[in-house]
Formats: sequence, structure tokens, C-alpha cells
Amino acid sequence: MKSVMIRERVRYAETDQMGVAYHGAYAAWFEIGRTAFCREKGVVYADLERQGWALVVVELEAQYKRPLRYDDAFEIWTEVTEAKSKVVEFAYRLLRGGEVCATGRTKHLFVDIRTFKPASAPAEVVEKLLR
Amino acid sequence: MKSVMIRERVRYAETDQMGVAYHGAYAAWFEIGRTAFCREKGVVYADLERQGWALVVVELEAQYKRPLRYDDAFEIWTEVTEAKSKVVEFAYRLLRGGEVCATGRTKHLFVDIRTFKPASAPAEVVEKLLR
Amino acid sequence: MKSVMIRERVRYAETDQMGVAYHGAYAAWFEIGRTAFCREKGVVYADLERQGWALVVVELEAQYKRPLRYDDAFEIWTEVTEAKSKVVEFAYRLLRGGEVCATGRTKHLFVDIRTFKPASAPAEVVEKLLR
Amino acid sequence: MKSVMIRERVRYAETDQMGVAYHGAYAAWFEIGRTAFCREKGVVYADLERQGWALVVVELEAQYKRPLRYDDAFEIWTEVTEAKSKVVEFAYRLLRGGEVCATGRTKHLFVDIRTFKPASAPAEVVEKLLR
Repeated sequence: MKSVMIRERVRYAETDQMGVAYHGAYAAWFEIGRTAFCREKGVVYADLERQGWALVVVELEAQYKRPLRYDDAFEIWTEVTEAKSKVVEFAYRLLRGGEVCATGRTKHLFVDIRTFKPASAPAEVVEKLLR
Repeated sequence: MKSVMIRERVRYAETDQMGVAYHGAYAAWFEIGRTAFCREKGVVYADLERQGWALVVVELEAQYKRPLRYDDAFEIWTEVTEAKSKVVEFAYRLLRGGEVCATGRTKHLFVDIRTFKPASAPAEVVEKLLR
Repeated sequence: MKSVMIRERVRYAETDQMGVAYHGAYAAWFEIGRTAFCREKGVVYADLERQGWALVVVELEAQYKRPLRYDDAFEIWTEVTEAKSKVVEFAYRLLRGGEVCATGRTKHLFVDIRTFKPASAPAEVVEKLLR
Repeated sequence: MKSVMIRERVRYAETDQMGVAYHGAYAAWFEIGRTAFCREKGVVYADLERQGWALVVVELEAQYKRPLRYDDAFEIWTEVTEAKSKVVEFAYRLLRGGEVCATGRTKHLFVDIRTFKPASAPAEVVEKLLR
């Protein structure tokens, strides 16, 4: 199972008065990695929602190793560490110039987007994520 | 027509590397003022959406006069400058210690929340906003 | 060691198209809890930075149990679970109407704000946080 | 004077419960356009700050014409409409599939980054922006 990479740059909006990227911005970066990963594997997440499923986040963790700064170009590497009909886990690594600046993990449940009750994802979706 | 005031504090998340509040954060502050204004006038905006209307922003402007800094306590003063069945305009003033730090204005259209097509708001809603 | 509570409301800006608060918004809420906790214990974080220290986040985790929605009023309860001259850990609980909606934890290092190198905090600061 | 284009995609974090991009997100998109414009013209904004100047925003306006949605790919077109030693104005157009979705304008003052007092920018910087 290969990881998927997408490039980003730190926005001015994402800095804080310490002069580095705000730690809360990483959740959105992980989400960009996730969206790119899914697209690459043939799962367009926007379509999944249109079809009635949502992938809600139930756990998030991040480890910050080196600060990212305004205008830094960095890479978001995403992989799936678990994918079942009800649960998916993603792992993330943020790299700048070959150095790991942060790592993270998110755990998600598939739910019915109208009720937010757990709902099994189509087998095809799970298969694609595991490819 | 009286303006409505709500107090806020600058979050660390809202600062940028200039050491002041990021200019993009003000849109969310105006929106907090707007929500407070509507509630005070008897219009719970969340209910309005549940009933099928949305108040989309079509214009935004902000004038920044004095920087706000992390942990600064400030006041958001909001008033309605125009309210018709299809259009509403709000004006905002942000004050810290009696000094105006920023002003702004937003223009909104009432739309059907499912189609995003213009839709007249209930007369009762417009009346309340103008009270 | 008592926990400190501060009230917040979900902003429209913090919702996402699932119709709930975006999971990335919680980092800023934890930070609001942290700022309130420190102030209550006599440590004004803004002053700490002016004196040359910063408390950088090295780990963040969050568990999402029940979605928060636009305009929901909720409470952020913060406590210190560890405080030494170099490391501080905070734990958070978000409650709405007595129900726990999310929990979290952050780990921080004291650093010299100019160099970002680890630096021992003044003993007085650590004592206050542990009070 | 040519405008500069940079591509972006709407993040999930940038949507709100109306199911479209939050209007407050556009300020950060304009800023991305501005950074790209400056870089293209040979002015690395991060360097400018390191050399002691900041370009503070004193006015912002945005006109929203068509909603952008999650995962939409769009273009940010930026141009300078005025550049003097003390004042710079940028104009923005956001396009998706050839259609203008939003327009905007920001006005900036050059200030000394330590004091926030107005300060003339190096002539070379202004010349490059006008090229």
C-alpha cells in the first residue's frame, strides 16, 4: 500500500505570533493529504458525501518536530493504516527538504450523512482505499 | 434602531507572524456580531436555516485602523443599515478600550438553502431585524 | 489542582459542510481553555512571551464523541496534568449541557522565543500552574 | 502590468454548513495570490519582513458572485492597481472553469515591522511590483 504525496505552502494566515505555523493548522493539512490520497485511489470524497456517507473524525493526533514557517514549501505524505467497512485510519508525515517536521494520525467512522449514525461503507470504497 | 454589542478576545490562533490579529479573522468576528444581533432581535439564525432560508454574503468590506493583539478584549458592535425581503446590510465597529480598531460592512441576500436561488424572507424576520 | 472553565459558542466559520463543527477547530478551543487556565492561575501567557519564553506545542490529541453544531453554547474545562520547568501537559474536556462532546490533551515545551531552543521556565510560573 | 495566477482547491476546512466555501476564507486566498504575485515579480515577501518592513492591510473588500464548493479547483488572479513608496493596492479575481466566482481588493501600507509606524518601502521593491 503506497502513500500519496501532495505539496503545500504555509500561508500567512496559518502563522501565529510565534512566527511559525499555528499547530491547529495541521488538521487542515492532514485533511488535504486525505483528500489527495482518496482521489489518487479512485475515491472522490465529495462524491461519497453526495451518495450519503460521511467519514467523521473520531480521533486526531499530531506530533510537532520542527516548526514550519510562512511560505515554506512542504510535502504531505498520507497512507491508510487500517480500512474496514466501518473504520478507516490514516497516518501523515509532513516533510520539508527531506526532513520530517510533523507526523499525525486520524481515525474515522463511516456514518449516514443525514443521521450521523454509523453506516457500513460500500465494499468497493474500502477496497480502493486499501489498494 | 439600536446596535448590539458582544465581547470577544483575540485567540492565539487568530494572530499572525506580524504579532497582531490576522486581517482575515475579522470576517468571523463580524459574523459573531451578526449572530448576536439577530438573536437579540428575536431572529435565531440557526432556526432560519432549519426553516429553509440562508443569508448568503455577497459583499464584505473592512477597514483596519488599529491592530488588535493576542488576548486583547474587544467589543463587536453590530447594526442593520438596511433590511428588505431580499437584502440585508449590516455594519460593524470593533472597539478596544473605547477606541475604534476596525469597521466593516456586509451585504446579504436571502436565498432558498436547497437551491441557493434568491427567496424573499418572511416579513416577520425583516420586521424583527428593523426593530 | 482544580480545572478552569470558560464558555464558548460555535461560530458559523467553524462549521463545515457536514453541518457540524470542523474537527480542526478544537485545537483553537483547547488553546482558549489553556489561556483561561493560565490567567486564572496568575500566569498571563502574553506576558510570558514578552519576557522571552514561549510554550510550543509538541503533541496534540483529540477524541470527538458528539458533534458540536453552529451556535451551540459549550464549556471548555482545562487542567494541568504535568508541569515541570521544561514540560507542561494540559487536558481538556468540552461539555454541552452536561455531556462530554470531546476530550483532548496537549504537551508543550518551554523554549526561548528568539531561538526556539528549550529553556527552563521561571520556577514561579511552574508553581502557579500547579497551584 | 500583467496579473499573476496561482491554482488552489477548496479545503474541507474552508466549507461551512451552507455547503459552500466560507466567505471569510477568501481573505486567505487573496493573500495567497498576493504572495504569488510578489514572488513572480521578484519580491519575496518573507524577505521583506526579515529586512524590517511589513505590508499591513488597511482595507479589504470582496464581492461574492458564485459559491465555491469543497474540492473545487479554482484560479486566483492577482494584479497591482497602485504601488507607491507608502501604499500598495492589489485586485483579485477568483475563477473556476473560466467563470468569475469572486472579486476583491486590498489596500496596504508599508510599516516598520518593529513599530508599526508608516515607513517608505525601498524604491526597488515598488519598481518590481509595478513591472
